[in-house]
This record gives sequence, C-alpha cells and structure tokens, in this order.
Amino acid sequence: MDDMKYIESKKNDEIKQLKKLSATKNIRKTGTYMIEGFHLVREADQFDQDFVKLLVTEKYSEDRLVKKYHDIAVTVSEDVANELSETKTPQGIFAVIKVQDASDFKEFSGKWVMLDDVQDPGNVGTIVRTADAAGYDGVITSLDTADFYQPKVQRSMQGSQFHLPIYRMDINQAISLAKKSELKIYGSEVNKQAKPYTELDKTDEFALIMGNEAHGITQDVLNETDENIYIPILGQAESLNVAVAAGVLMYGLQTL
Amino acid sequence: MDDMKYIESKKNDEIKQLKKLSATKNIRKTGTYMIEGFHLVREADQFDQDFVKLLVTEKYSEDRLVKKYHDIAVTVSEDVANELSETKTPQGIFAVIKVQDASDFKEFSGKWVMLDDVQDPGNVGTIVRTADAAGYDGVITSLDTADFYQPKVQRSMQGSQFHLPIYRMDINQAISLAKKSELKIYGSEVNKQAKPYTELDKTDEFALIMGNEAHGITQDVLNETDENIYIPILGQAESLNVAVAAGVLMYGLQTL
Repeated sequence: MDDMKYIESKKNDEIKQLKKLSATKNIRKTGTYMIEGFHLVREADQFDQDFVKLLVTEKYSEDRLVKKYHDIAVTVSEDVANELSETKTPQGIFAVIKVQDASDFKEFSGKWVMLDDVQDPGNVGTIVRTADAAGYDGVITSLDTADFYQPKVQRSMQGSQFHLPIYRMDINQAISLAKKSELKIYGSEVNKQAKPYTELDKTDEFALIMGNEAHGITQDVLNETDENIYIPILGQAESLNVAVAAGVLMYGLQTL
Repeated sequence: MDDMKYIESKKNDEIKQLKKLSATKNIRKTGTYMIEGFHLVREADQFDQDFVKLLVTEKYSEDRLVKKYHDIAVTVSEDVANELSETKTPQGIFAVIKVQDASDFKEFSGKWVMLDDVQDPGNVGTIVRTADAAGYDGVITSLDTADFYQPKVQRSMQGSQFHLPIYRMDINQAISLAKKSELKIYGSEVNKQAKPYTELDKTDEFALIMGNEAHGITQDVLNETDENIYIPILGQAESLNVAVAAGVLMYGLQTL
C-alpha cells in the first residue's frame, strides 16, 4: 500500500530493537515477542492474538493481513527480513505480538501441565505442542523454566501457544491456586516408590508436574503433590527424555 | 603406564583421522565410531562393545579400563582431548568402537521400532532411548534416516545403543524379514482413517513404524502394514513431534 512506512536499512533503530526480541530478557521487559512465517502469523491472527506490529517484505504488501493491520504494518527490505529472521530463507513476514498475561489468572479447571525448571527450550516447546494435541487446558512454567517465547521454544511449539493458555508464574503459587480450584496435583518422578501411571484412577481435573531434566521435581514441590507417579522403565535406560515422558503421561492420564 | 603411546599434537595424523569420525560418511566407511565421557566408555565396556581404541588424558592413565585395553590404549594431551571432544569441557576419555553389524541379522522376535526416514538426529536418538526404556527388543532405521552413531544422535541416545540392537538397513527388506518372523507390522499415521492406538488388540510380536517428520511414512511402506494406527489429536495441534508420538505408542502398545 502506498502510504505504508518502509524500512530499508537493517541499521534502523526500530529494527535493532526488534532484533533484540530474540533474547528472553527483552521479551520480558517489553511483554512482546516476535513470530515469523506466513502460516504462524496467519494463525496468530485467527486465534485473536494481540498484534503490536506487522512487518512484511514487498511480496506480502497486498496481503489481507496488511490491510487488516494497516495502522501497525511496515514494509521492510529483504535485507531487514534477513536480519530479523531466525531462518536461512525468511518468508518475509513477521509480527510482534503480546505475551499471554497471567496477572488476571485466578482459577484452574481441567487438565494442566506444570513445568518445574525444565531447562531445554526444545523440551518446553514440545511439551506445549503435546499438551495442545492431547487436549490439555493449559501449561504453567516455573520462573526458572526456559521461557516460552524465545525462538527455540517457539520452533518446537509450532503455534500451539495460540491454542491454549501458557503462563509463567511462581510454581508454588500455581500449585496453591490449583489446589484451591480442587485440582489433584500429580508429580512425575523417576522413582519406583511412586505409583505407576497406569494404576492411577483417572480424573478430569488435575495438574501434572514435570521436573528438571537432571534433577527432577524440587523437593518442596514434591511435598505438595497428592500423588507421585512414574513411568515403568522396562529396559536398561536410566530415564526418559522429559518431553517424551510428558507425552506418555499426558496421553496415559487422558480419557481416550 | 610407562610404555603407553602418547600423542601430544592435535595435528597428529591419527588424531586428524579420529576427528573425522564425527561425520556419518566416515563412520560408515570405517565401521567404527567414537564415544566420549567416563560413564559412556565404562558402559560400553560393561556391555561388551567391540573396542578398537581407547584414548585418555593423564588423569585416567591408571584407570582399570586402561589396564584392560592396554594394547589399544593411547594417552593424549589436553590439547588433543579438546580437539576430539564434542563438549566444551571434555572429561578426557574416549573410545573408538565398532558399529553394530546387521549382516548376520536374519530373524526378528518381540517388539521392534522401525524408522522410515526420520531426519532429525535428536528424534532418532530419543526414540532409541525410549525403545530401551519401554522394553523394546530393537530399532531399525531406513537407509535415509539420520545415522545412529553421529554425535547428535549419540547425545540423545545416552548409551541406549549398548542395551538393544540397532541396525541400519533397507526398510522394505526389514519389513519382509519381520513378516517372515511373523511380527505384525503397524504403521503410525496422522490420519483419522487409521485406527486409534488405544483400540488395537495388544500383541507381543510386532514392528511399529514411525515416519518422516514432514511427510510421514512412505506409501510403499504403508502398503505393507497389517494395521495403520494413529494418536487421537484432541486439541488444535496439527501433529505431534515424532519422538513424542513414538513414546506414546511404544508405551501404549506395551503390556503394562
């Protein structure tokens, strides 16, 4: 469109600021994050995400989305697109959108997953994607879990952040809120003292807690659980990858 | 030990050759691969892997393993250890061991997983680790699947390659061998026409095939299956990560 702002140089101040959105601290500071690619941007729109900015190369300048978000849309050069992109061959469409805000969140219902200091971004993203697929109602991460909106987590989430609530909050606070909402609290352990997940009576309202890759769930969180469950290890592996374990448990505890 | 060979320079020809073992083509050419770290090397010994070479820094020069493998043991400098290592802080112990040889493999029994062109090394390694944990009898990869022994796959396998047979072979040949051994062949699909995995009658002798991350199982392989199964998608995700899907199915089809 003729009257759209155009940014040619990757040294432009606005672009420099946006580039910084790949870092967690800047995502937290601004309360916004960047997504890229036509499929993801279209889906963010479909699922009513809060757009702050839309950036497109000339190729997309006549797209329906540009018309819809005209007031916050900017055209950029291929050079700028390359600068902003996390991929080698950028599609040339980016959006800055607001992170989900947990401040109004007061009550749990249904099936939730809570991550207690899960470190690997790929694991966090994959767990969100699986929670979405398995029909769970939302995901909570502890303050020390890898941040939802950093590029590596996004890559594994594949847009699932638009499909279910994902909140970062103090995990002890989340657990006490979940208890008030009468959810059962299940901790996942690599410990034969715990109950095999297959023996758990199925319920519709619970929070499943997954722990850190190396250390598992922290002791003060384990103290708060109603039941600790484990996945039987039938071979000689010492443990399962946490994202796989979460998948086995999410589907295993779901009523299918 | 006094009479052990010592290599100081990372420019040594032998070290240059070993460094190349991180590339799949050289693993295939030599039929050997390198592992590193005390835990993994000790486990390889425990599980009777075929050692070709053992390399240690001075720190490990009196270790029991060095005595046992004295004829093929070499001491190396920290500089060489840094050169060979895939990690930032190498422990200073490496072994070159033979890859598992499929040429004598003629008969299947029990529960197997077959990978039809799975691309991502992390997925392949995680699936091997899960197959181990879930008590499966072995893993087959198609010729175009990411190679078992490359460093990224090894990182996710966490030593499970020592616990169960893992073979690379033509997948159609593997399927026809499995059929001769009277295993049921299950294909995993993202397709509601397939049968939910929860409705499958459980059997003790089968091969579960997982397909490529983007394209799923190839059509000529699907034509050979006894049953195609899928994991119900209850939310709005389009699919599951293949390693998670494999985990859900491996545990879901296991008799627990």
